[in-house]
Amino acid sequence: MATLGLIEYKDASPEVRAVYDDIMATRKTDWINNFWKAIAHDPITLRRTWEDIKQIMAPGALDALTKEMVYLAVSVSNQCGYCIASHTAGARKQGMTDEMFKELMAVVGMANQTNRLVSGYQVEIDDKFRTSK
Amino acid sequence: MATLGLIEYKDASPEVRAVYDDIMATRKTDWINNFWKAIAHDPITLRRTWEDIKQIMAPGALDALTKEMVYLAVSVSNQCGYCIASHTAGARKQGMTDEMFKELMAVVGMANQTNRLVSGYQVEIDDKFRTSK
Amino acid sequence: MATLGLIEYKDASPEVRAVYDDIMATRKTDWINNFWKAIAHDPITLRRTWEDIKQIMAPGALDALTKEMVYLAVSVSNQCGYCIASHTAGARKQGMTDEMFKELMAVVGMANQTNRLVSGYQVEIDDKFRTSK
Amino acid sequence: MATLGLIEYKDASPEVRAVYDDIMATRKTDWINNFWKAIAHDPITLRRTWEDIKQIMAPGALDALTKEMVYLAVSVSNQCGYCIASHTAGARKQGMTDEMFKELMAVVGMANQTNRLVSGYQVEIDDKFRTSK
Amino acid sequence: MATLGLIEYKDASPEVRAVYDDIMATRKTDWINNFWKAIAHDPITLRRTWEDIKQIMAPGALDALTKEMVYLAVSVSNQCGYCIASHTAGARKQGMTDEMFKELMAVVGMANQTNRLVSGYQVEIDDKFRTSK
Amino acid sequence: MATLGLIEYKDASPEVRAVYDDIMATRKTDWINNFWKAIAHDPITLRRTWEDIKQIMAPGALDALTKEMVYLAVSVSNQCGYCIASHTAGARKQGMTDEMFKELMAVVGMANQTNRLVSGYQVEIDDKFRTSK
Repeated sequence: MATLGLIEYKDASPEVRAVYDDIMATRKTDWINNFWKAIAHDPITLRRTWEDIKQIMAPGALDALTKEMVYLAVSVSNQCGYCIASHTAGARKQGMTDEMFKELMAVVGMANQTNRLVSGYQVEIDDKFRTSK
Repeated sequence: MATLGLIEYKDASPEVRAVYDDIMATRKTDWINNFWKAIAHDPITLRRTWEDIKQIMAPGALDALTKEMVYLAVSVSNQCGYCIASHTAGARKQGMTDEMFKELMAVVGMANQTNRLVSGYQVEIDDKFRTSK
Repeated sequence: MATLGLIEYKDASPEVRAVYDDIMATRKTDWINNFWKAIAHDPITLRRTWEDIKQIMAPGALDALTKEMVYLAVSVSNQCGYCIASHTAGARKQGMTDEMFKELMAVVGMANQTNRLVSGYQVEIDDKFRTSK
Repeated sequence: MATLGLIEYKDASPEVRAVYDDIMATRKTDWINNFWKAIAHDPITLRRTWEDIKQIMAPGALDALTKEMVYLAVSVSNQCGYCIASHTAGARKQGMTDEMFKELMAVVGMANQTNRLVSGYQVEIDDKFRTSK
Repeated sequence: MATLGLIEYKDASPEVRAVYDDIMATRKTDWINNFWKAIAHDPITLRRTWEDIKQIMAPGALDALTKEMVYLAVSVSNQCGYCIASHTAGARKQGMTDEMFKELMAVVGMANQTNRLVSGYQVEIDDKFRTSK
Repeated sequence: MATLGLIEYKDASPEVRAVYDDIMATRKTDWINNFWKAIAHDPITLRRTWEDIKQIMAPGALDALTKEMVYLAVSVSNQCGYCIASHTAGARKQGMTDEMFKELMAVVGMANQTNRLVSGYQVEIDDKFRTSK
């Protein structure tokens, strides 16, 4: 059970409802997932986190699907169960196919492997890689 | 300095040279970065790692640029200095612009933040997210 | 289920009971949580871990509440479910209010975000920060 | 060298200078550390990160020193060199003494140890800890 | 539930069955654990991962038991629940006794502690340790 | 530079010297590495850490070489530069050959890869693995 419990829409203060409304409108859904209901106990964190996510995840130089897959990749690397479940759903909603998911996992797994080979063999950064840009 | 030192092309055995040659041919470059020279002390690991990377990083359901950016995202999340330097270069080579890099970092940072909010608030997985596919 | 099972007080050897007794006396409780019952299979680790914790968590230059919140912050950062649950309880016992918990989580989340922005942008340490003390 | 280089005050755009000015005013210093100069290439991330930090790190239910020490604890746990250097300086500025630093490190080290004993022994969460609040 | 579900032997394609058969023959068992059934949705990853594991985990300069215990140590350090459960079983099959398990956990816990003391105190590498070999 | 500087033998208090003497006697060397000199600012942590390490790393159900390799494996997984350098030296002193080092790195890399495949595919623990012992 969430540490402070979950705040449902019907029990929410006006300021929390305003964020919930914006989440549902932005995501074109009538549903709020547990993450928001858990941090709603801290309305300042709720608003700040939502505003940040809305800004960061909006399509820009990277499209929304790529961003969701990167979010999933990081969550897998950190082994955060909730985040993996929610961002797998998020990425699917943006169009991630089974084939894309499988290739994504292969890259994430490989990166975690070579990250350790690099540190274990104490590999120094090549001069070519040190040059900015 | 790398634990076992670096094996340069001129000092490499035929089996190591064969991998180096394939790396340079595949990547259309005449240059081998330190990672490969460090693990070349273990020719079996060198070959296996290269064959795996070649297979995993080839364009498929995900294009090569997306894969390099995911690789970079994981390396940043794991805070592996060498990997960040080399995969920033790799992603740039595949076409990552400054704008893409900046948005990528924003997503990686945000994912690392919310991963901890989720765990700290002990958020349970929503039933909707539990349904496979 | 714990790998080796849990050792209850009634089934414990005298040396394990002595540690259990000290835990209960120090914490002013009549209850032993699962962590100790699980590692009690290794009485040397049980005693060493308890003696270390008792020494480290005692009020000193930092008060007991601050120490419990730092312990919780690290456990959240590592995403250790059991540790988050037990040290949330521990911090509450020392006086952590809901407001303190919420601010603590905000700091932990933010630190995890900027840790990755720093590594992703490959920021070098300022000379000012290099000077010891 | 930082991936995109560092943006000095004299070379900064008005929007970046506005953030720099606020950082210096808030912190009562005439100096900007490299982190901000590195992410200034992305003025949106610069502003968002600074606004978030300013809000989160302001004294509230937790005082500024406790927050800096928690930030440091997380950075140590994540082994982020730059972050450790900068938040050690930040915590000292808020009044962290050598004695406090040493006790902080002892807690961080111990938490990282027991986090793994818990996972290695596969300890299940006690029912008592499951009850919210 | 696994993201893509589990592929049982009776429902598997010939190429997946071939890997399953080799796993059972190599491990002298008539049972396939969930990990393989989950990644079998990606037959290329299934085959590559199995071939890599078979090569890496075969006795060589290190015996099979040592390798399984190292695998377990890494999984504990990463706090991967499934991996801890499966490699605890794997190590036991290779002969890990309760006494060995307990000492292994003590080493893993200690390493995680001192890793953070080192980073927190910002310890520089001794010249003696920099010399390759 | 270490946060609090390094305490050399000639500048050490009697209680610190006593630990240094025991380290040198136990390890049959006339040299103290930086880790101990850095934490010597906190004599209690110095003594506790050394006593714990001496107890944990002594040969028991696992020999000293296996313990050093596990320590190295964890340090590589955590990507702690100092720890990798010092425990590579430590393992070599106990007899780790180049061949053993290479196989160790292969196992560590593979474990980090499959740890993420497991979490990404959300694999549930098999019932067979849930049974204690």
